[in-house]
Amino acid sequence: MARFFITASNIFGGVAYLSKEDADHIKVLRIRKGETFTVCDGNGTDYICRLSDDEGGVEILDKSPSPGEPSVKCSVFAAFSKSDKIESVIQKCVELGASEIVVFPSKRCVAKPEGASLLRKTDRWQKIAKEAAKQSERGKVPTVSVMPSYEDAVKKAAEAQLALFCYEDEKKLSLKTALEQYGGVKSFSVMTGPEGGFEPSEAALAVQYGMKSVTLGPRILRCETAPMCALSAVMLFTDNM
Amino acid sequence: MARFFITASNIFGGVAYLSKEDADHIKVLRIRKGETFTVCDGNGTDYICRLSDDEGGVEILDKSPSPGEPSVKCSVFAAFSKSDKIESVIQKCVELGASEIVVFPSKRCVAKPEGASLLRKTDRWQKIAKEAAKQSERGKVPTVSVMPSYEDAVKKAAEAQLALFCYEDEKKLSLKTALEQYGGVKSFSVMTGPEGGFEPSEAALAVQYGMKSVTLGPRILRCETAPMCALSAVMLFTDNM
Repeated sequence: MARFFITASNIFGGVAYLSKEDADHIKVLRIRKGETFTVCDGNGTDYICRLSDDEGGVEILDKSPSPGEPSVKCSVFAAFSKSDKIESVIQKCVELGASEIVVFPSKRCVAKPEGASLLRKTDRWQKIAKEAAKQSERGKVPTVSVMPSYEDAVKKAAEAQLALFCYEDEKKLSLKTALEQYGGVKSFSVMTGPEGGFEPSEAALAVQYGMKSVTLGPRILRCETAPMCALSAVMLFTDNM
Repeated sequence: MARFFITASNIFGGVAYLSKEDADHIKVLRIRKGETFTVCDGNGTDYICRLSDDEGGVEILDKSPSPGEPSVKCSVFAAFSKSDKIESVIQKCVELGASEIVVFPSKRCVAKPEGASLLRKTDRWQKIAKEAAKQSERGKVPTVSVMPSYEDAVKKAAEAQLALFCYEDEKKLSLKTALEQYGGVKSFSVMTGPEGGFEPSEAALAVQYGMKSVTLGPRILRCETAPMCALSAVMLFTDNM
């Protein structure tokens, strides 16, 4: 069944008001009067709708929680990396169920966009997240935000009930053991470094703020592979996969 | 410590014979007489070596299993997809611990390279696998091979002790449940479809050959995301992450 996002404020009185773009899309898909499709409010609810006339009037038949939304929140904190890599992380982490993506600077980041360039990038990243949310049938569009400093990122990441700092030089605690030790957690964060990894002082700061330093195993993962891998593990572990 | 691959036949009599390329690399890294580095035979063994003279003579001090090799074999079967996608799958699945990558045609594949074009691609894919194996510190370079038909691919995938067919329309068996039901398995395969997914008749054939049809959850994953996600799950589950 065709599926659209619509802003929640456009749904009221048993009727959904589609944007011109979505109304045009309905025409392209040749959905006709009386046929049904799904509208998602981008806030975790799916509405089964029926086209009630040929002018794009839409009647709501039923609503239910969007099946694509995980039962836990997992924020992905990814250090700035080259454009194609960070874009791939955003796209794939939205598919895999991230609740939000937070991009941040760290000492070994090669690229640290600022000012107008950063604004343009953030805008582009949010569009990538929206497209990925549509394509993967999420019920919400995860936000993409940027932290001004590494310390700000760590502070925010540490707010999760289980805050996982993925660190290449961590030799003791595995991601799996960390997940097993914390049954029933509903909010997670996973934080991963740039191309050159984190510096020891950065790892120390994360631990100081209460994050768990974990290893993703003996293989060295690229900066764009690590977040997908850690997020897949959280989703598997919490029965969201 | 610097780390090189070398063909196993170049290690004998307590001495490793480096290729000209690696000998040059040693010079670039300014490794000097008496200093140590690691040589991997590409067959799962790491050798701790010492530069014994200034002409590239190398003495072997110790050997041990490569820590980057997982304790289980997991073959990744990925359907042909656009070049950048299949290349990304190969690169990242090598990092994540795949024992081999097998590329195959299926009904909805948009791209089905053949003849000379396929030979060139396979050669390129194998190079990507080798680079990824080096970068991620694997002990073996996974092979990349191509199956001539879908049925051949299914037959080969079904040889694993636990053969997982990742299918968008599977609604009952989750990947996690399938993994939990089969404790102690040492050989896995994960098979994923092209951009448009598998056809029902293809899923039926896979099951007929003994593969387990599993879902990766309610979100629709892109063809390049699904193999990384499934492989991460196998590695997490088998304590290789």
